[in-house]
Amino acid sequence: MTSRISRVDVTPVAFADPPLLNVVGVHQPWALRAIVEVRTDDGLVGLGETYADEAHLARLGAVAAALPGHDPFDLHELHRLVAEVLGRETGGAGASFGGMLDVASAVPTVESPFEVACLDVIGRATGRPVSDLLGGAVRDRVPFSGYLFYRWAAHPGGAEDPWGAALDPDAVVAQARRMVDGWGFGSLKLKGGVLPPEQECAAIEALRDAFPGVPLRLDPNGAWTPETSVAVARRLTGVVEYLEDPTPGIDGMAYVAARTEVPLATNMCVIAFEHLPPAIAADAVQIVLSDHHLWGGLRASALLGGIAQTFGLGLSMHSNSHLGVSLAAMVHLAAATPGLTYACDTHYPWKTQDVVAPGVLAFEGGAVAVPTGPGLGVELDRDLLGVLHEQYLTCGVRRREDTVYMRTVQPDFVANTARW
Amino acid sequence: MTSRISRVDVTPVAFADPPLLNVVGVHQPWALRAIVEVRTDDGLVGLGETYADEAHLARLGAVAAALPGHDPFDLHELHRLVAEVLGRETGGAGASFGGMLDVASAVPTVESPFEVACLDVIGRATGRPVSDLLGGAVRDRVPFSGYLFYRWAAHPGGAEDPWGAALDPDAVVAQARRMVDGWGFGSLKLKGGVLPPEQECAAIEALRDAFPGVPLRLDPNGAWTPETSVAVARRLTGVVEYLEDPTPGIDGMAYVAARTEVPLATNMCVIAFEHLPPAIAADAVQIVLSDHHLWGGLRASALLGGIAQTFGLGLSMHSNSHLGVSLAAMVHLAAATPGLTYACDTHYPWKTQDVVAPGVLAFEGGAVAVPTGPGLGVELDRDLLGVLHEQYLTCGVRRREDTVYMRTVQPDFVANTARW
Repeated sequence: MTSRISRVDVTPVAFADPPLLNVVGVHQPWALRAIVEVRTDDGLVGLGETYADEAHLARLGAVAAALPGHDPFDLHELHRLVAEVLGRETGGAGASFGGMLDVASAVPTVESPFEVACLDVIGRATGRPVSDLLGGAVRDRVPFSGYLFYRWAAHPGGAEDPWGAALDPDAVVAQARRMVDGWGFGSLKLKGGVLPPEQECAAIEALRDAFPGVPLRLDPNGAWTPETSVAVARRLTGVVEYLEDPTPGIDGMAYVAARTEVPLATNMCVIAFEHLPPAIAADAVQIVLSDHHLWGGLRASALLGGIAQTFGLGLSMHSNSHLGVSLAAMVHLAAATPGLTYACDTHYPWKTQDVVAPGVLAFEGGAVAVPTGPGLGVELDRDLLGVLHEQYLTCGVRRREDTVYMRTVQPDFVANTARW
Repeated sequence: MTSRISRVDVTPVAFADPPLLNVVGVHQPWALRAIVEVRTDDGLVGLGETYADEAHLARLGAVAAALPGHDPFDLHELHRLVAEVLGRETGGAGASFGGMLDVASAVPTVESPFEVACLDVIGRATGRPVSDLLGGAVRDRVPFSGYLFYRWAAHPGGAEDPWGAALDPDAVVAQARRMVDGWGFGSLKLKGGVLPPEQECAAIEALRDAFPGVPLRLDPNGAWTPETSVAVARRLTGVVEYLEDPTPGIDGMAYVAARTEVPLATNMCVIAFEHLPPAIAADAVQIVLSDHHLWGGLRASALLGGIAQTFGLGLSMHSNSHLGVSLAAMVHLAAATPGLTYACDTHYPWKTQDVVAPGVLAFEGGAVAVPTGPGLGVELDRDLLGVLHEQYLTCGVRRREDTVYMRTVQPDFVANTARW
């Protein structure tokens, strides 16, 4: 097996996204993703999926052009090559996604979809699911939590979807009911940071009353001051399984963590390996949300899992709006991560289109069975890929700008964390 | 590829070992190792090598009996199975090797040779070297350091070997010359803890004069008090690239580290994942010596490497007396560990026999080329294996007991760290 990469395609796609609210604004009508296909000279094709902001696409394209001739097994060389290409062709600076996630180096985010695609190739070459390449599945079903959002009934000028508006506790409970009835989720997460904390606490308490015993999480994306965070933590002690990013920054999180028994989770202050030492030294977080798109791929995320186990941190999984290639990768990673201690996040129920052929990825009881076919175990439907690429070409969105879009509706909107 | 493990053999072997001195005594005339062979129902054989103290052999045997029917790719299952078997059949308690290395759990040391053998199987099944299964070789040659020992000319009543005695600086330099001339080593390590620190410092200074510019290390295995360690560090600042375990324990090492610019390395106070958080919190060590035999295998050692990179620790590699299966595994691991910042230790030049067929593992310029064949890339020579197993059966040694053996020569010998 001396196959080499012969060609790499990066296809930007767009799919309809509802008006989900968060601390920096509101989801645009179209969510962007890039589908990576790594082809080898012996006819294999591996898949990856990542963000598709235009700056990111340019970097993906530069790496895609440099990959032919390389060995898909040599993932350390992939890392080196990405760093070299980014340094040479695009300046190697950081990256920002959605106005909330800023990383000092673009290397991990650019490396990730190629690494996943190479693992898909390796799995296909060896007849093994990707979970086996990560040490073997320790669970055959991966539990996810239902991801609740404050939201409008429709995008301005757009048609309403079946979900309806959700801006108060009753509507949040109704949304949760729909999630639980439709997907079977056994835990629930509310994206907060949208309404004053008193209202968001009331929504969580309403969920607690409506779904007794169901683990609940609240994630305001750093919308609160440390003092407000402490007050919310006091109110929600025994009600939430964790608070995610109540306040921005490692120092702020450490301040809150020292004053509450409620575990603090993060996908904002620890999103790269260099954030781990100061966060651990400050005892700032008790749970890290992994995300293979951000951390540099599945093997890097497995390293994060090992670090979390070593340092006694809990591990959960973050999600952005995504399609089935990412879901498959998330499921394989979660299946092969012994220390994953919480149900994973996913935006999957919010989308109505995909690029993968249906049949493999299905939610049952809030969990997705780990694909058992070679590699990721999913295949692209090229017709669907064409449809979503066409949507990309015509939708006009070229980067995620929740704040800019929000201002078309609320001109005075200011995206600021620690606003309350 | 749905091969299953069909049979596992564990063969204890013994090979002649010179009278090398250390803080707990002296190497016995025979060093023990166990060779693990994992066979699959599709005819593959994977190799592993580990310690062979009788308590360890009993545990290896219990796991070997439980492995048939399992999937060699499922390494998380291997870990679970080893923990289960040790808990059930042998009490699951800790393990001690050579009187210096005590671990609270026997799981990693028992798991290691089976994990290596499974990776060898996977490599053979996929036609890939083990380094590729660890992410790919970042170097095609792995540098080792020449491992110098104070030693007697011969075992009591035994024949002299060509090395001669080494108990003063001139003899240490002569030994080093032989190492450098014969193997091409570009760095040198002296096992200390044998003579008073003043004499060992003089030996290091003699090496510095004889081999200007060659990186030097001194490892007294915790023979000194913290204060003595600080004094030695002061004397050897700018002379050694690191001091290894000058004093026992994380607290002692932290005391020394705070008082010297000389980096401190360890293979004694950080030899399991649970030691990393307190050592990092105390800034006790700057370099960790990995050892896949101790840490649970090659993937666990890769995790250690990732942790070291994340927390800014240097990484080197420890060695006990070993044969070619271990050397091959060490070379693959080192090749696929980007953060390995120092030449690896090896006892390899001190032995005169092996169990692997010659031709693959050769030292040139102090380095070993990474085997490029499938798996570990080495094969057992069954005749040699038979010879070394016969030696095991007849040699009478059943566990490593440097102190007991030393007392046959020096009845008043007391093995105590922090003795100076």
